Amino acid sequence: MKFLIIGGDAAGMSAASRAKRNNPDMGVTVLEKTADVSYSACGMPYNIADPGRPIDDLVVRQADVFREKQGISVLTGHCAESLDPAGRIVTGASSDGKAFQFAYDKLLIAAGGSPVIPDLPGFDLPGVMALKSLDDGRKIKAYLKNHHVKKAVIIGMGYIGLEMCEALRARSVEVDMVKPGPVLLPWMEPELSDVIREELESNNVRLHPGHQAERIEAENGGMKVICPNMSLDADMVLVAMGIKPNSELAAGANIALSVNNSIAVDRRLGTSDENIYAAGDCADAYHIVTGEKTWIPLALRANRAGWAVADNICGKEVELAGIAGTAVFKVFDLEVARTGLTIKEAVKSGSDPVKAVIRTRSRAHAHPGSTPIRIQMIGDKETGRILGVQMVGREGVAHRINAVAVALHNRMTVEAFSQTDLAYAPPFGPVWDPLLTAANQLLKKM
Amino acid sequence: MKFLIIGGDAAGMSAASRAKRNNPDMGVTVLEKTADVSYSACGMPYNIADPGRPIDDLVVRQADVFREKQGISVLTGHCAESLDPAGRIVTGASSDGKAFQFAYDKLLIAAGGSPVIPDLPGFDLPGVMALKSLDDGRKIKAYLKNHHVKKAVIIGMGYIGLEMCEALRARSVEVDMVKPGPVLLPWMEPELSDVIREELESNNVRLHPGHQAERIEAENGGMKVICPNMSLDADMVLVAMGIKPNSELAAGANIALSVNNSIAVDRRLGTSDENIYAAGDCADAYHIVTGEKTWIPLALRANRAGWAVADNICGKEVELAGIAGTAVFKVFDLEVARTGLTIKEAVKSGSDPVKAVIRTRSRAHAHPGSTPIRIQMIGDKETGRILGVQMVGREGVAHRINAVAVALHNRMTVEAFSQTDLAYAPPFGPVWDPLLTAANQLLKKM
Repeated sequence: MKFLIIGGDAAGMSAASRAKRNNPDMGVTVLEKTADVSYSACGMPYNIADPGRPIDDLVVRQADVFREKQGISVLTGHCAESLDPAGRIVTGASSDGKAFQFAYDKLLIAAGGSPVIPDLPGFDLPGVMALKSLDDGRKIKAYLKNHHVKKAVIIGMGYIGLEMCEALRARSVEVDMVKPGPVLLPWMEPELSDVIREELESNNVRLHPGHQAERIEAENGGMKVICPNMSLDADMVLVAMGIKPNSELAAGANIALSVNNSIAVDRRLGTSDENIYAAGDCADAYHIVTGEKTWIPLALRANRAGWAVADNICGKEVELAGIAGTAVFKVFDLEVARTGLTIKEAVKSGSDPVKAVIRTRSRAHAHPGSTPIRIQMIGDKETGRILGVQMVGREGVAHRINAVAVALHNRMTVEAFSQTDLAYAPPFGPVWDPLLTAANQLLKKM
Repeated sequence: MKFLIIGGDAAGMSAASRAKRNNPDMGVTVLEKTADVSYSACGMPYNIADPGRPIDDLVVRQADVFREKQGISVLTGHCAESLDPAGRIVTGASSDGKAFQFAYDKLLIAAGGSPVIPDLPGFDLPGVMALKSLDDGRKIKAYLKNHHVKKAVIIGMGYIGLEMCEALRARSVEVDMVKPGPVLLPWMEPELSDVIREELESNNVRLHPGHQAERIEAENGGMKVICPNMSLDADMVLVAMGIKPNSELAAGANIALSVNNSIAVDRRLGTSDENIYAAGDCADAYHIVTGEKTWIPLALRANRAGWAVADNICGKEVELAGIAGTAVFKVFDLEVARTGLTIKEAVKSGSDPVKAVIRTRSRAHAHPGSTPIRIQMIGDKETGRILGVQMVGREGVAHRINAVAVALHNRMTVEAFSQTDLAYAPPFGPVWDPLLTAANQLLKKM
């Protein structure tokens, strides 16, 4: 069997490795348009923060190791350009300009996502960059090394923007952040997002919500980010306005698309073509709370979906449960986490949500070093189920969220969750775990 | 209605407060044999570690606050001595020697537990102490203040022993630990418990497993702990050999006892007498994994059971799901956690357990500051269910265990758990959360 994979990062290389483990005789070919495979993309902001660390530290396994130790044909610099599902052929061109053509029995599209870059004047200036591929990270790192970057403007205030803001502050770069919407993290309760805003401000990050960047102008060797009522000087601009799925190839071959133009897949990761699978940032997923299709491109799902594709093409039927949208990120000394639905998403999905917002402590009564933990827990009045949680604190947030994720997978009610036997010791939390306190408060409103 | 409560710590005061909230007209009386109510017993080792902190910092709410703000009749220094279930009367004596007698409509026995002190020569010397009540903590703290304690011997190597060992080392006391059994923590895989042993040794704690303390002798102003083949000098001895339930009063009134002589309660916390409830360290519980009775005295259960008793006597029917035995403790810089069954417990409960023991990292590939996390996950071959997890590491253990506790409450299979959407960001873990890696490894053996 010929297994062809488009894309050599999380989903693609997970599928390639697992297919070879499942079936060492299978011919596995990976077409990767960049020069890099199998790297920790999420680690880039932390690597960029430290000028002393080479960006290639983030490569988990070199292409040669896949080739020589695992017998996977990894072709970097190979960009797939068109797909013929009827003839089962992928054509494209390699970075040295040569055309290629590959036949397949089974195809995995794991083409990832691309940063959203608006088509506006100046967004193509050399000092304007985005962060998605390792090569993007390499460029940013080189730019910081080769230019005297005193001021940076980050357009966007999502995960990547916030993580990069911390990285740039660690390198003593002044940071302005700008976005059109009026609120820092609109999916959070103000009581929680205010904590993040204060943390950013106390680290001298200047936030400018409510300002739309309309163009970027080169000026005196630097740049100016121009908004209707404001302009910001910058030696470097990071565009962190989110990503979009790389689904053009699939769309061009009439494969069905889904939410946000991601590639529609079933629980087996199969697309609308029986020989074509999709996984990773280019594919959609079922949300375990709503049961509906969603598109939340995150690393764990990409890896897991890669494995599932490999198992399915090797005859071991695997269906994925779906995703809860569990996510965590660090903002300076804060841990911020979420899983499941926000209030807005809950309303949109047809639920009758009710929320509790609590403030409790990270350690037991009278234990030194305690800091506040803030939690929003959302329940459904009709069914009693937990729908989602968002949390912010200086410690004890990142891993605590997982208890709720597991509860969501089990469609637990707030009441049942409030009865769970969670761990307690004074250095790690109050007797009533913050999540239990949130559940107890929420119960009163249900 | 007259609601009488024996015992004024976690379970007792939780019940008292909640009963008054539920029904402000109820007459609520608490008989507490010591001078203290409502304190964080688990915080004592951390308080003892710091000579500058008064032990009364650990009092969560003073008796006067319960009396004046909540209208609860809190009688400290009141020791209940006998119980007449037919006449619904408790008699006893107060610390000033006066006899008392109280009638009740509903009685809660929340008498807690007592340290196990063997009846051996010298265990009653003034420098030999245990740690359970706040008064025990007060005595230890005073002893450390008033004596020049250079060397301590801790008899026992359980949670309390280990936490106190850290506290004493923080005060520059040399510590020897001794226990009859051959292994530090017999419920753990050696691969995990070895990490704890190394942590203790690197903090200059001397461990002597396999030695039974037979007597303690006073000598030259100090003491000697005598074992058959060894003796250890001590300025202070801590007996940390576990606790036993204070169930004598219940037993004397022919109330049914259960595992380890704890008081048998149903899911409503009712005892074999319809007007008598029991909660906290003196009562048993259902184990959510086995469905069988168990006795695992921990603080969260005590608080929760206190609430449930109050709700039940106020007419709001509450049944508790049971406990998973989730526990966490700190040993110097290590976090140690467990939930559910050990291999031995699983075999005893009739399961066909299979285990995976893994070593992974606390942070993502190439993220600075990563430390090892070791996990044992146990599954049941017949049903595919997760039965329990034990974990050790320097970070990311204490709260991670809760995801497994929630899985146990939902009787999840290892396979279903392996599909859960857990959080990922490089500072907080690998893409595949350590628990998912453990589940993936365990799946291969099931």
